[in-house]
Amino acid sequence: MISEDKVPLRKPLLDVLSGLEPTRTPLWLMRQAGRYLPEYRQTRSKARDFLDLCYTPELAVEVTLQPLRRYDLDAAIMFADILLIPDALGQNVAFREGEGPVLEPVRGRDALAGLNTEGLHQKLAPVYETLRQLAQRLPPPMTLIGFAGAPWTVATYMVEGRGSPNQAAAKSWAYTDPIGFDVLIQLLVDATAEYLIAQVDAGAEVLQLFDTWAGNLPPSQFNRWCIQPTADLIRQVKAARPDVPIIGFPRGAGPLYGDYVEATGVNGVSIDTGLSLAWAAKNLQKKIAVQGNLDPLALVAGGDILKSETDKIFAALAGGPHIFNLGHGIVPETPPEHVAELVSLVRSQDGQ
Amino acid sequence: MISEDKVPLRKPLLDVLSGLEPTRTPLWLMRQAGRYLPEYRQTRSKARDFLDLCYTPELAVEVTLQPLRRYDLDAAIMFADILLIPDALGQNVAFREGEGPVLEPVRGRDALAGLNTEGLHQKLAPVYETLRQLAQRLPPPMTLIGFAGAPWTVATYMVEGRGSPNQAAAKSWAYTDPIGFDVLIQLLVDATAEYLIAQVDAGAEVLQLFDTWAGNLPPSQFNRWCIQPTADLIRQVKAARPDVPIIGFPRGAGPLYGDYVEATGVNGVSIDTGLSLAWAAKNLQKKIAVQGNLDPLALVAGGDILKSETDKIFAALAGGPHIFNLGHGIVPETPPEHVAELVSLVRSQDGQ
Repeated sequence: MISEDKVPLRKPLLDVLSGLEPTRTPLWLMRQAGRYLPEYRQTRSKARDFLDLCYTPELAVEVTLQPLRRYDLDAAIMFADILLIPDALGQNVAFREGEGPVLEPVRGRDALAGLNTEGLHQKLAPVYETLRQLAQRLPPPMTLIGFAGAPWTVATYMVEGRGSPNQAAAKSWAYTDPIGFDVLIQLLVDATAEYLIAQVDAGAEVLQLFDTWAGNLPPSQFNRWCIQPTADLIRQVKAARPDVPIIGFPRGAGPLYGDYVEATGVNGVSIDTGLSLAWAAKNLQKKIAVQGNLDPLALVAGGDILKSETDKIFAALAGGPHIFNLGHGIVPETPPEHVAELVSLVRSQDGQ
Repeated sequence: MISEDKVPLRKPLLDVLSGLEPTRTPLWLMRQAGRYLPEYRQTRSKARDFLDLCYTPELAVEVTLQPLRRYDLDAAIMFADILLIPDALGQNVAFREGEGPVLEPVRGRDALAGLNTEGLHQKLAPVYETLRQLAQRLPPPMTLIGFAGAPWTVATYMVEGRGSPNQAAAKSWAYTDPIGFDVLIQLLVDATAEYLIAQVDAGAEVLQLFDTWAGNLPPSQFNRWCIQPTADLIRQVKAARPDVPIIGFPRGAGPLYGDYVEATGVNGVSIDTGLSLAWAAKNLQKKIAVQGNLDPLALVAGGDILKSETDKIFAALAGGPHIFNLGHGIVPETPPEHVAELVSLVRSQDGQ
């Protein structure tokens, strides 16, 4: 809980996550800074590559602020990537145009010897600098969000060496040598906790944990590799910075979203596009703020479907704490004017 | 319900789907015939390409029977592919080595003019011949399964022109021109109903509907593009062949599995690896047989994790009608001896 006398102007996102009635439904969009904006593509072209964009505060601040100049949103999310952690741990990470991330795969316990947290804060210093500059420049009712990948999802990239539709390499390791794999997970828990604490100290007011590949784990493994490491990580962050609200996003978890909300200590939960709204309202929203879950493809389409899907989300979730967002990130094909359309649809729900 | 006096020997799979107590837990595996078997790769090399393998009864029968020679399974699933329907409707479909299926994309209403059911049964005649030969050759307690892709999933491939992680092209059409997209869906409902009825007449005793990409639809769209077309399709099949049990597999549907089971008319439901077993036992298995849901990667791993995951599935689902299966298809990296290990683990649960 934040004490109200410390807050110069009410922040809708912080209010909802603290159990208070917000002045309006807080609204932000995953990947709100990104390739769908021409000004992003222009700034991007000034960086050597994608990592350079993340590590250059001047450019990262600029792309973070771009969507806020266009749209009436309630939060800025620092521009960065979930794979900065493996990079900072000493793994070779590259982003190749049109191919996505490519990492030197970490397979088995021996490969872990090359990874450590010694250079972590030095490597990630530009991210903290980005946050410091954003904290100074954001208008007061806007909330500054920091983030990281959850240990399981980051591990899937580290072990596979790239994005993988079935997480085969990480699962194979976790299944045949759970004790060895747990060394990697614990390294990620500790490194990510340090990273997030430093983000708070640099100005992040809310943290989001992205567990993009959690949904494909069988229930027992979901508990072991998604819930437990997330709970550990949140314990560490909250022990150091008790007031920071944390939103978790175990994408595709289905009914296991319920276990996740019970057991991880998150203050809010981001739901994917496919999750039943009625189920989420009944089983999640009574305990916690629910964030979501417009289909990014409805935002691409615009028009009738954008309105009707937005209406349905409000009809289902307006009775409890709700943060309006997408169910997954904005896709590059999104027409920027459809985002403006969405913002006005969301505001009209609050009579604004 | 099948009347018992017509059944020469009790078939565990048919019994479970008819609400009877089976002599043992029925067991089969999605993609039980496939690349993980060296004898499959040998037979595959005799065909010009993958479509030729599907359309040559002698070869398709052979690969269907291969896993049954190695393992004590309760069902054979005819060897074919969900994209034979677009091929039979006149769309250009090819399977390129290492690249997966490639189709001439159908985008918008005009492109539908090139598709029709006129040549359907002629094109699919080899599939029916495969089933006829299998029906003659299968040992009596074994059940013969036919299948098709569900309309939504087949449409995603037809519109995108290939597999697509976010089904962007199909969703874009469905969202901007639902009436036009519905023409494609209705064509698929009708063609698939005809195809499945012909499969029953050729000897298929159970049908499975694969809706691989259902889980990513928002709830309202899940109802419109997954549940409604599936319900239509099942109504048509059951009107013609009332006794055939149908298993549905809306992969990734999460809590919407409940709506699917209520509204489609399926006799059994196949659950994906990520679904909570406790939730499935409570919400699905009281109404219907539940099939699943071992992680295919646990089968790759073998050993302890294969045993413990199998045990957990039995612990959760043994109290109701249960068909043991994977939560998704066998992957090519699976060691064939691990399948033997799994069969013996499943049989030992029944004290066999």
